[in-house]
Amino acid sequence: MILIKIGGGENINTEYICEDIATLVQKSEKDVIIHGANFVRDELAEKLNIPTKIITSPSGVASVFTNENAIDVFLMSYAGLVNKKLVAKLLKYGVNAVGLSGVDGRLLQARKRDAIYGVENGKTKLITNSLTGKVEKVNGELLRLLINAGYVAVLCPPAISSENEILNIDNDFASAILAGELGIEKIVMLFEAPGMLEDAKDENTLIKNIKKEELGEYLQFAKGRMKKKILGAAKSFALGVRQIYLGDGRVRNPIVNLLEGNGTIIE
Amino acid sequence: MILIKIGGGENINTEYICEDIATLVQKSEKDVIIHGANFVRDELAEKLNIPTKIITSPSGVASVFTNENAIDVFLMSYAGLVNKKLVAKLLKYGVNAVGLSGVDGRLLQARKRDAIYGVENGKTKLITNSLTGKVEKVNGELLRLLINAGYVAVLCPPAISSENEILNIDNDFASAILAGELGIEKIVMLFEAPGMLEDAKDENTLIKNIKKEELGEYLQFAKGRMKKKILGAAKSFALGVRQIYLGDGRVRNPIVNLLEGNGTIIE
Repeated sequence: MILIKIGGGENINTEYICEDIATLVQKSEKDVIIHGANFVRDELAEKLNIPTKIITSPSGVASVFTNENAIDVFLMSYAGLVNKKLVAKLLKYGVNAVGLSGVDGRLLQARKRDAIYGVENGKTKLITNSLTGKVEKVNGELLRLLINAGYVAVLCPPAISSENEILNIDNDFASAILAGELGIEKIVMLFEAPGMLEDAKDENTLIKNIKKEELGEYLQFAKGRMKKKILGAAKSFALGVRQIYLGDGRVRNPIVNLLEGNGTIIE
Repeated sequence: MILIKIGGGENINTEYICEDIATLVQKSEKDVIIHGANFVRDELAEKLNIPTKIITSPSGVASVFTNENAIDVFLMSYAGLVNKKLVAKLLKYGVNAVGLSGVDGRLLQARKRDAIYGVENGKTKLITNSLTGKVEKVNGELLRLLINAGYVAVLCPPAISSENEILNIDNDFASAILAGELGIEKIVMLFEAPGMLEDAKDENTLIKNIKKEELGEYLQFAKGRMKKKILGAAKSFALGVRQIYLGDGRVRNPIVNLLEGNGTIIE
């Protein structure tokens, strides 16, 4: 079984991705999909005049400040628009897809963060009212029920807390917990770059191989969202994952190419 | 098993409804839920400057004109915002809810209408570009899989065509096909009135009992959305439903009260 994580960037080509997932499914490879939707979310938030506010932690990790309005935008873009269009596209390619958010059947259960530190204009502030959480538990029973019946689950945030609050979560960390619960050994991550780059601005600086023991070093150089990917990767290996493939979600045959080595492999 | 249809009006109290569903579930009564979201949809459409356009057929049946923008608003409001908040509320009351749209696993498969007739300023026009369909098939296998595992399915439009177009559908007609597929004999419909009224403007004109044979007569007097409810009811009886309860979704214990006779019973 492969966990395929589809980034939510503007130029991600879901048509190519769905075509490739259909090829995997035809080869009897079971897949679980988790996706983002940040471009669509930001666009919708802008239109509704609720702009996305990014918080950067003192260690440089970026996350979204989430109030109730932001949760609404989250539900509309992730669980509504992007999830269902992805499901329809997979159905078109013959993949028996079912879309679920982390709320459904407590699929992704998270613990609410009491407080997070954010740096603003050089000052560290304590932020206590963000509806943000960390996934602790996955409803593997529900996922196995669907997978064993031949469905491909298409998952997305938000998650839900044990106190039934709908929470924004880090998708990379959620992927790690998900892989752990389902005993998945391979994760494929598709985003808007050919893989992990030494210089984020230069696509010719692709890092082809990373040993999982080296992740700590890379964490020092990584910026913003890439930091979360590395932290998520480290957690994934701790939970039994053996290979993580990072690659380009904009090109034709993105998954097949990536599994053949065109991208970054962490192992 | 009871099919509970929750209307999408502004004053529907989902807190009361979810509390009542929890009571039914505790009594080992299995439920399937289908909901609307028209108030939230219209509000969102207004904010995004894509106002909802109503088409009235020559026989007086009202429906929504649906282009691609309207489908997006549909997905955001029905499958995103309203579905997931309803699921979270049910989880809060201890109901193991899973939300799915008609797109997921082809749950509601519809046939696209090639053309519909609409009356505008007294003139009948042929409208050929509306993404509207009629549900023909329900994925009962997926629903039974979830129900037998103890989950309560929370369903909503849109549906999907065999050509993989996402389509707006009539929820009352979909409920009939759904009840037929699952062999459901009781449908509970909650909306913003104490039941079917002789005079839509006077809540003291409640019709307590309607014989299914009389539905044809009521169709002549019913207006707008109520026409669809009657057409949906007639289809439901044709597919094996034995009782339809129509009642108030704004009051405490809406379902328990309705099953005890406070509302309209068609049988």
